[in-house]
Amino acid sequence: MAEYFKDIKKVEYVGKESKDPLAFHYYDPERKIGNKTMEEHLRFSVAYWHTFTAEGRDMFGVESANREWNKFSDPLDKAYARCDAAFEFMSKLGVKYFCTHDRDLVDEQETLRETNKLLDKVVERIKERMKETGIKLLWGTSNLFTHPRFMQGAATSCDADIYAYAAAQVKKALEITKELNGENYVFWGGREGYETLLNTNMELELNNLANFLHMAVDYAKEIGFDGQFLIEPKPKEPTKHQYDFDVANSYAFLQKYDLDKYFKFNIEANHATLAGHTFQHELRYARINNILGSVDANMGDLLLGWDTDQFPTNVFENVLAMYEILKNGGIAPGGLNFDSHVRRPSYENIDLFYAHIAGMDAFALGLILANKILEDKVLEDFVEKRYNSFNEGMGKKIVDGRTNFKELEEYVLDKKVGVPKSGRQEYLENLLNLCIYE
Amino acid sequence: MAEYFKDIKKVEYVGKESKDPLAFHYYDPERKIGNKTMEEHLRFSVAYWHTFTAEGRDMFGVESANREWNKFSDPLDKAYARCDAAFEFMSKLGVKYFCTHDRDLVDEQETLRETNKLLDKVVERIKERMKETGIKLLWGTSNLFTHPRFMQGAATSCDADIYAYAAAQVKKALEITKELNGENYVFWGGREGYETLLNTNMELELNNLANFLHMAVDYAKEIGFDGQFLIEPKPKEPTKHQYDFDVANSYAFLQKYDLDKYFKFNIEANHATLAGHTFQHELRYARINNILGSVDANMGDLLLGWDTDQFPTNVFENVLAMYEILKNGGIAPGGLNFDSHVRRPSYENIDLFYAHIAGMDAFALGLILANKILEDKVLEDFVEKRYNSFNEGMGKKIVDGRTNFKELEEYVLDKKVGVPKSGRQEYLENLLNLCIYE
Amino acid sequence: MAEYFKDIKKVEYVGKESKDPLAFHYYDPERKIGNKTMEEHLRFSVAYWHTFTAEGRDMFGVESANREWNKFSDPLDKAYARCDAAFEFMSKLGVKYFCTHDRDLVDEQETLRETNKLLDKVVERIKERMKETGIKLLWGTSNLFTHPRFMQGAATSCDADIYAYAAAQVKKALEITKELNGENYVFWGGREGYETLLNTNMELELNNLANFLHMAVDYAKEIGFDGQFLIEPKPKEPTKHQYDFDVANSYAFLQKYDLDKYFKFNIEANHATLAGHTFQHELRYARINNILGSVDANMGDLLLGWDTDQFPTNVFENVLAMYEILKNGGIAPGGLNFDSHVRRPSYENIDLFYAHIAGMDAFALGLILANKILEDKVLEDFVEKRYNSFNEGMGKKIVDGRTNFKELEEYVLDKKVGVPKSGRQEYLENLLNLCIYE
Amino acid sequence: MAEYFKDIKKVEYVGKESKDPLAFHYYDPERKIGNKTMEEHLRFSVAYWHTFTAEGRDMFGVESANREWNKFSDPLDKAYARCDAAFEFMSKLGVKYFCTHDRDLVDEQETLRETNKLLDKVVERIKERMKETGIKLLWGTSNLFTHPRFMQGAATSCDADIYAYAAAQVKKALEITKELNGENYVFWGGREGYETLLNTNMELELNNLANFLHMAVDYAKEIGFDGQFLIEPKPKEPTKHQYDFDVANSYAFLQKYDLDKYFKFNIEANHATLAGHTFQHELRYARINNILGSVDANMGDLLLGWDTDQFPTNVFENVLAMYEILKNGGIAPGGLNFDSHVRRPSYENIDLFYAHIAGMDAFALGLILANKILEDKVLEDFVEKRYNSFNEGMGKKIVDGRTNFKELEEYVLDKKVGVPKSGRQEYLENLLNLCIYE
Repeated sequence: MAEYFKDIKKVEYVGKESKDPLAFHYYDPERKIGNKTMEEHLRFSVAYWHTFTAEGRDMFGVESANREWNKFSDPLDKAYARCDAAFEFMSKLGVKYFCTHDRDLVDEQETLRETNKLLDKVVERIKERMKETGIKLLWGTSNLFTHPRFMQGAATSCDADIYAYAAAQVKKALEITKELNGENYVFWGGREGYETLLNTNMELELNNLANFLHMAVDYAKEIGFDGQFLIEPKPKEPTKHQYDFDVANSYAFLQKYDLDKYFKFNIEANHATLAGHTFQHELRYARINNILGSVDANMGDLLLGWDTDQFPTNVFENVLAMYEILKNGGIAPGGLNFDSHVRRPSYENIDLFYAHIAGMDAFALGLILANKILEDKVLEDFVEKRYNSFNEGMGKKIVDGRTNFKELEEYVLDKKVGVPKSGRQEYLENLLNLCIYE
Repeated sequence: MAEYFKDIKKVEYVGKESKDPLAFHYYDPERKIGNKTMEEHLRFSVAYWHTFTAEGRDMFGVESANREWNKFSDPLDKAYARCDAAFEFMSKLGVKYFCTHDRDLVDEQETLRETNKLLDKVVERIKERMKETGIKLLWGTSNLFTHPRFMQGAATSCDADIYAYAAAQVKKALEITKELNGENYVFWGGREGYETLLNTNMELELNNLANFLHMAVDYAKEIGFDGQFLIEPKPKEPTKHQYDFDVANSYAFLQKYDLDKYFKFNIEANHATLAGHTFQHELRYARINNILGSVDANMGDLLLGWDTDQFPTNVFENVLAMYEILKNGGIAPGGLNFDSHVRRPSYENIDLFYAHIAGMDAFALGLILANKILEDKVLEDFVEKRYNSFNEGMGKKIVDGRTNFKELEEYVLDKKVGVPKSGRQEYLENLLNLCIYE
Repeated sequence: MAEYFKDIKKVEYVGKESKDPLAFHYYDPERKIGNKTMEEHLRFSVAYWHTFTAEGRDMFGVESANREWNKFSDPLDKAYARCDAAFEFMSKLGVKYFCTHDRDLVDEQETLRETNKLLDKVVERIKERMKETGIKLLWGTSNLFTHPRFMQGAATSCDADIYAYAAAQVKKALEITKELNGENYVFWGGREGYETLLNTNMELELNNLANFLHMAVDYAKEIGFDGQFLIEPKPKEPTKHQYDFDVANSYAFLQKYDLDKYFKFNIEANHATLAGHTFQHELRYARINNILGSVDANMGDLLLGWDTDQFPTNVFENVLAMYEILKNGGIAPGGLNFDSHVRRPSYENIDLFYAHIAGMDAFALGLILANKILEDKVLEDFVEKRYNSFNEGMGKKIVDGRTNFKELEEYVLDKKVGVPKSGRQEYLENLLNLCIYE
Repeated sequence: MAEYFKDIKKVEYVGKESKDPLAFHYYDPERKIGNKTMEEHLRFSVAYWHTFTAEGRDMFGVESANREWNKFSDPLDKAYARCDAAFEFMSKLGVKYFCTHDRDLVDEQETLRETNKLLDKVVERIKERMKETGIKLLWGTSNLFTHPRFMQGAATSCDADIYAYAAAQVKKALEITKELNGENYVFWGGREGYETLLNTNMELELNNLANFLHMAVDYAKEIGFDGQFLIEPKPKEPTKHQYDFDVANSYAFLQKYDLDKYFKFNIEANHATLAGHTFQHELRYARINNILGSVDANMGDLLLGWDTDQFPTNVFENVLAMYEILKNGGIAPGGLNFDSHVRRPSYENIDLFYAHIAGMDAFALGLILANKILEDKVLEDFVEKRYNSFNEGMGKKIVDGRTNFKELEEYVLDKKVGVPKSGRQEYLENLLNLCIYE
């Protein structure tokens, strides 16, 4: 079997003192943080598309990373090679999960039947590799955005045949996900939106989308797939407007169409910021609504208006993210999938290692520090005190919904109602720094 | 009675040929567009706060517009003078509606009881003026953001007394709105959000907000106020994050807390763009969900990151807005409220007229042109054809929810499914220009 | 000779009454506006890359427009076919200029020598077509961004060989531009910038860039190319930061390196807005500094953070642009180059016509209306009056630089200096609407 | 003498182990970093306006922080009290510099003469306090934006009298700055720009601005003020467009008007990001052009579109800033001025301490870590190697400007010129994290 990363050995934890760039300095899979190991907490996953399929194209430049495993003319040869490269990479990196679209596994053929036939063969190979390595499928999904057929939507296409094709693709992707024991199934509606309202029947499109998701739920039940369904919101790009704009937008949609009990969310940092939110905001919002499902771990550049999908090396942001995840009781059956790609100038195979190591170490730091903040109750005590007027008396009645406008008016009509306690933002930011840089 | 706009006569429709800047060139209130007059379609409203209360302060400069009617030391004298100026202005302008916060009417006093007492007096004066002039209240609302007490929220305050105070304020504002036959009541939660998640219990705050709105609904029922309740979303400013981020975010909230049957939306152009949407998008989204209630007619500057609240002189945007409103069957009982203020350098009283005339003429043009687009079916025919594959066969089954993944797979398994019809965006943009500039 | 647009006849001016979508309704090339024809004013140009080379790829989707002329395996066959398609298209459209990169003309070969050899052949074919059709080259340029070699810059590469390669490419592109009597030569530094400051020697890169431009100036002199050199600024995309961020940034650079006498600017609407400016701002800034050279006529979507390069159908923006161009005394030897591409869903060949017609008509309207605004002195009289205090007395001394702080202090020390005249923004916006929609 | 911060003792360095929130944990003024103490490196300054004058107003809310020292009706009493509070605060905080506008010191009076008379008295008081405490003036400036007179500009006003008034104000501010041994004088042109191009003569305004600055330079020479002149760029807010958009924009202006030898730049983090740049970018750009003068130390919120002026608690950003400052050989005679204000909910006096401590500790960390990065040559070695092809051969000739297009073409004509070395961004980001979180 070909070895694609010959000069790379298994990446090991070496601690902070070592300067070896091909080792972990903070991520120690076996280390216990609270009652779980780091590996159990973080559930890292490699994104098949960014790391094995894509090759560094951007809007003004062609592919720049020459991945050997993609240099085969026969589709099956290429699919097998890519699969082998993927499992070699993940094994050496020590990541236990991967995520994939159907079309990452094998190139599309003339008909769906032919594509599916090839897919079945590749799935066999993947199953073998999974068995050999113990690596698991975090989530499967279907690519309904690359092919020109989907230029105007898939489940919101203006063309019924294309809608049908998309449905058939998801059917097969669900079967594969079940076959590979995938723990989740994700919908990212990259083309479900519009370029211009001038030609768009938004009402019809949203109704059709709801029907599509109901059919997916029904089919999962039919085949006994009991993984978690996830929506991945993104506001724009490639479309001008994407219906799943942010978590709250999609949550409104799910509720309206009685789909909210079947779906949770896969939240991506860079998608959050493109929607005008912090990553932490989207996580918090999902957490308190009990719809936090999984995370696409990356980071964006807030001065740029597109999805840069950078490896998440900003430790501070990761601390805030892990804080929400710990408060959520963890992210399982979801995980932290690196929906990140190396910068175009980082085109060498070894950069794939550097980048994943950078992200994993930075998230391991995020976990360690967020856990410390929680254990020290750096924020919890402050927040508890800030709202303590709601623990008794009229405050308690408000919280319990046991009062009304008349009673509240009487309560304050002659009262000098002053200002609330100081919010102490700078003080809290300082506390956080003390905790992080100690 | 003092006359504040001495040199201004009643603003009349003079048509396109005249260059008189103190006249309407497109807005002809009596002109029929379809089966309604322009006045009935547009339901223009003047915003008490921007036009009579505020005086041109910005973050780096003090008040610059010296409004005579605000130059009284006694709060009641000032309130009466402002009321008189308002009704003189609106009569001369020929606008039939106004909108107001409680605190626009009279300055807050030491206790709520004292403030309410003064309010009662001002309300009497307003009722007189309304009777004399035939001007009506489009909507009332309560200012829960200017006083330092609300620096950390009102219905989402961290302090129960402040929450109670806010409730009592809304109670009174509802009573006033009913007393003045207001047709709507608006909630803009300018401080309902957070500055930093570090000190925020978002879950508690949102639960409290839901209780607050339920109490408002209950109290309205109790006093027999049957106007429409409206939420006005805005994503940020003054807070870092505002819970009512956009229509969809608020709709998710309303559904979760069983409030969706009581509320519609007051959509502001500039708030839409701050949330990353076009004005038309927010209108469309609300329309198809049957929650379009009213409109804050203004425009923003998309290169600036704050709420510039400019008078809506962009005719093209107004065409798109009126297109949605006409498709909605009109905006009543809502209206087009000029939540707009003159630029700080437009500090003279006469600028208040120039600005409203500019906005009214530009929206009248919007109405005329949108109606033409609809009558000529410039877009409708194209859209109808674009989706015609859903009118029969498998497309019809999809729309009706009468198919499933298996059937759809069979349908396409061996089919060459190509690309959809061209979206023709540039062609449609050209058609629109032809319609507008003819 | 193959005919690629068989069903299309020459696009003619038919006036506003006709609804023929394959005709001009405002653009009448022979119509005199002031002392020039519309054709002379507008100097429209087709962009070879968007219209003939590119095929509708985006970051999430593959090519979607199947252009027959690109379906040749032999590079020269393809180059000839593309050339023929281009001249057929331009002839039918009635556009008299085109713009091109070197690499639009023919695909890059193994060595520069081989590429240049093919280029020579294509240039011969183009010369023939130019002679036959009377179509001219508005500007030439070199593509220094698509090939992976330029992933980290060309004239600012970290690698001297790549820098040399870029220089040699520009040398050849200059020769071709001269050969084809190109009236301008453009530098767009799409990769001249950085992805991260962590690895960047900005000082060295900028020095090298200045040397590069000096060599270009020297070589142009050497070969007798006397067209205008132009810089095309863009702030970001594909790089995180591009050195030619906006006109002023590049102007600072040109001045520092004594290059300002050799260069003017090619200003693109969408690049302006990505830099946080209006298109009009960039035009105005260049105009008053006497560095306005040419225009890339397109429009962006201000709610999107990338270069959408849409056809410029927003008439109002075009009015403001043409206002600046008319005040500049015209744009020649520059022109209005449609650096615009059809939306991905507008994938049919006919959409290329619809889109160009839409842009040309919308810019013709811009010209007609801007000329009217100038002739009626709608703005000029107001602006003249606004600054009239600088026409005499102390104001005149200020303008002439004949006073000083002491004299000015004496002048105001005991004076009550009030506020300036009202800026009347809304009034002016209304005047503009009256002019445009009359 | 009144004591305004009674419960606060001198803030001392206590080290990382202590959790005392009213102490420094990283900022140890005497600690040597390289050959300078932390105090010498950082040159912290308190902003008189944010900390002593302003009281927590925002666009939707009135003042919320009741500062006792501002509660005097007599302008001189208030000015003295504010001065006393300021020096008490700075002494307790241990900051050695302050910055101030003329109008922070005393409220404006009826005439300039009267204002100046009061200013003279306040300046005497300040000189006393400076002598007693050893605190120095980092820079002086003039407030040319708060008064309505400046609503349409000061040195770019459309009114000559207002221009004269502004000149006289700057004259006096220069005299005061000299009197107080200020080390710099800053121009922030908050109103020097436009609201709309429709009414603006940009050319006249910029010429007048240049004359204004020349007069300032001349007057400084006349009175023997030899401090450094600084421009503080900001792109927008309060104006729609501000002429000093970013460092490069202003640098273009300064060069054009032969002012570049007299001015350097005062760079603010939040202004950088509003202009679409990172803070580090602006510092780097200024550094390599030898125009880095001083720093306004704060941070913005990149998801918000206005100047939030937050205390700079983001350690990572501070590391990058201090990296540039160290490479610049330090910031003197400039300094790090906290142009930052407490969040509106942080309204208590003690929050002023918490906030400054948070900023000082976070910048001290920035200094410590940036110094470590430089000493370890974490980035320097990499960058050196990245560009090493320019150290000899053809690369050297390029750098030295000793080659030309012909020679460069010969050099590459038959050469296979590949891609540059990997940029290794993720690797470098990881190295930085290792350095920072060790």
